[in-house]
Amino acid sequence: MRPIEDYVSRMSGADSGAMNAAKRLQDTLTKPQGSLGKLEDISIRLAGIYGVPRPSIGRKAVFTMAADHGVTAEGVSAYPQEVTRQMVLNFASGGAAINVLSRHVGAEVKVVDMGVATSEDWPEGIVNRKVGMGTEDMAKGPAMTVDEAKTCLEVGAELAAQSIQDGVNALAIGDMGIGNTTAASAITATVSGRAPSEVTGRGTGIDDSRLRTKVSVIESALRVNAPDPSDGLDVLSKVGGFEIGGMAGVLIGAASSRVPVFLDGFVTSSAALIASVICPESVDFMIASHLSIEPGHEYALAHLDLEPVLNLHMRLGEGTGAVLALDIADASCKVLAEMATFDGAGVSGECE
Amino acid sequence: MRPIEDYVSRMSGADSGAMNAAKRLQDTLTKPQGSLGKLEDISIRLAGIYGVPRPSIGRKAVFTMAADHGVTAEGVSAYPQEVTRQMVLNFASGGAAINVLSRHVGAEVKVVDMGVATSEDWPEGIVNRKVGMGTEDMAKGPAMTVDEAKTCLEVGAELAAQSIQDGVNALAIGDMGIGNTTAASAITATVSGRAPSEVTGRGTGIDDSRLRTKVSVIESALRVNAPDPSDGLDVLSKVGGFEIGGMAGVLIGAASSRVPVFLDGFVTSSAALIASVICPESVDFMIASHLSIEPGHEYALAHLDLEPVLNLHMRLGEGTGAVLALDIADASCKVLAEMATFDGAGVSGECE
Repeated sequence: MRPIEDYVSRMSGADSGAMNAAKRLQDTLTKPQGSLGKLEDISIRLAGIYGVPRPSIGRKAVFTMAADHGVTAEGVSAYPQEVTRQMVLNFASGGAAINVLSRHVGAEVKVVDMGVATSEDWPEGIVNRKVGMGTEDMAKGPAMTVDEAKTCLEVGAELAAQSIQDGVNALAIGDMGIGNTTAASAITATVSGRAPSEVTGRGTGIDDSRLRTKVSVIESALRVNAPDPSDGLDVLSKVGGFEIGGMAGVLIGAASSRVPVFLDGFVTSSAALIASVICPESVDFMIASHLSIEPGHEYALAHLDLEPVLNLHMRLGEGTGAVLALDIADASCKVLAEMATFDGAGVSGECE
Repeated sequence: MRPIEDYVSRMSGADSGAMNAAKRLQDTLTKPQGSLGKLEDISIRLAGIYGVPRPSIGRKAVFTMAADHGVTAEGVSAYPQEVTRQMVLNFASGGAAINVLSRHVGAEVKVVDMGVATSEDWPEGIVNRKVGMGTEDMAKGPAMTVDEAKTCLEVGAELAAQSIQDGVNALAIGDMGIGNTTAASAITATVSGRAPSEVTGRGTGIDDSRLRTKVSVIESALRVNAPDPSDGLDVLSKVGGFEIGGMAGVLIGAASSRVPVFLDGFVTSSAALIASVICPESVDFMIASHLSIEPGHEYALAHLDLEPVLNLHMRLGEGTGAVLALDIADASCKVLAEMATFDGAGVSGECE
């Protein structure tokens, strides 16, 4: 695998010339200036990402990355760990929410086992890039080794690069991993400098008592490991997860090929924080799809300076919010490409 | 045409049995309960509308209704009145935002001239149901006669009934009419009891001085006409518009056939207020698609007790926000119809 530094070193930010051209184009279309709101904003951001004034979204895919978390031993989740494995099988048979919504918007689902705690053979369609059999319990020590963290990033970047080479030109990321909002909260607390109690929520739906446990487990993990907020690999290895590392790798890999990645909820935003520490320019290629009801999500997006497209009160993960926003982004590009101009349609502009 | 009372008299509200069944079904699907947020809520509302536990959206259409407003003589808009006519031609040739977005989501666009101030023949595809050559100036007297107001409602209800008979089972409404946010503000002030200054915004983008003019024009219209907030026909005739009446008719006609109508922005919500006064049960069949940046929109939706699906900072009209929400509603029905259950997929439920 190519080292992650390879991707980072050939990265440049958004193309401001293309963004300005897209903005000027928007203002010639038969509608009051700015009246399509976020649809206009997204199309302009995509112009900057693709480096053309009239971007278009063609083949879309979502990477749904799965892994297990040793920290589940601490009783931080409402669901047993085996649900991760069971849900991977559900993805394979097309019965999960991400399958339904991806079919609706015309996106391919690429399910990747980054570290599910099972040695069984997966059915066809599941990509096995297992880095380990679940992470270690971060409340007791590092979740993974630095080498494993690096491997996660490189696997993710390679998968992104491969799919882009195959013709995909817009990506989304999503997660599946019982216990992974605990890792996401620990990462968000570390990188944003917020207290664990501020960035920790109910995940799949825990009660008050388990929420108190979850916060104190995260406090222990941060005390025991002391992750360095300026070192993304250190944060990932100490309090991250294999799927979080994989998604951070997708973000870096796609950005180095100038392909947008649509974030999903809170766990994907923690992958975005890791990617942003390793490579700040990668943020130019991220689109925040929706605002999760997990409290840490808003802090993570604020730290990344990203505004979510949707707010549907979702908290499922898997990439479900990301594919819905991908579809709206697709529509936003069509507006720019297909709408008539004031001159072309003989429509009068504003009164003097 | 059938009198509007015919539609009103055979109206019943949402089917609460089907809604409860849909709610129970949602809770068996392989996701934490409630984790799809508004997607779950919409599917449950649609179950109540269609009266089945697993609703589905098939053929979709948007009625984009156009008319002119005599009140433009008072200088309340940033665009000249002829833009209404020019935009109808733009709709006919497929170059407007509503054409692009409807193609994206697979909805038919039905453009209806309810009262554009021109006697020209429209190209094919434009439905001519002109009630008048634009309304009178409501700052000086009633915008239209009570008979004209009734005709608007009956035309709208008939068009809805016809399209439903043709096989459409989900409708959206949208508006085009230079000056129509002035009418919408006057209606909203009347029905919600708010002051004109609270419910009046910049429409297509007027400056501060024109905004002050617009507010004082609305204040005059309410003083001169004294519309009765408990009489929808009175409000429509005195401070409404032909396209607003047509859309109110679509809302009543569709509701009487148990078909949902997706509202768009502020002007459509003023049609919804008229319909709600004439027939309160019609509100059960309305879905609020998005929150416009027009300040009156939020008050109108609050009065109707409807929560918008999207908030994309749009303020274009035409039905553009409505068709985007229609597509999300379509996805929400697919979730209910296509997702695996915990039992079926062998996925463990919550820990005890």
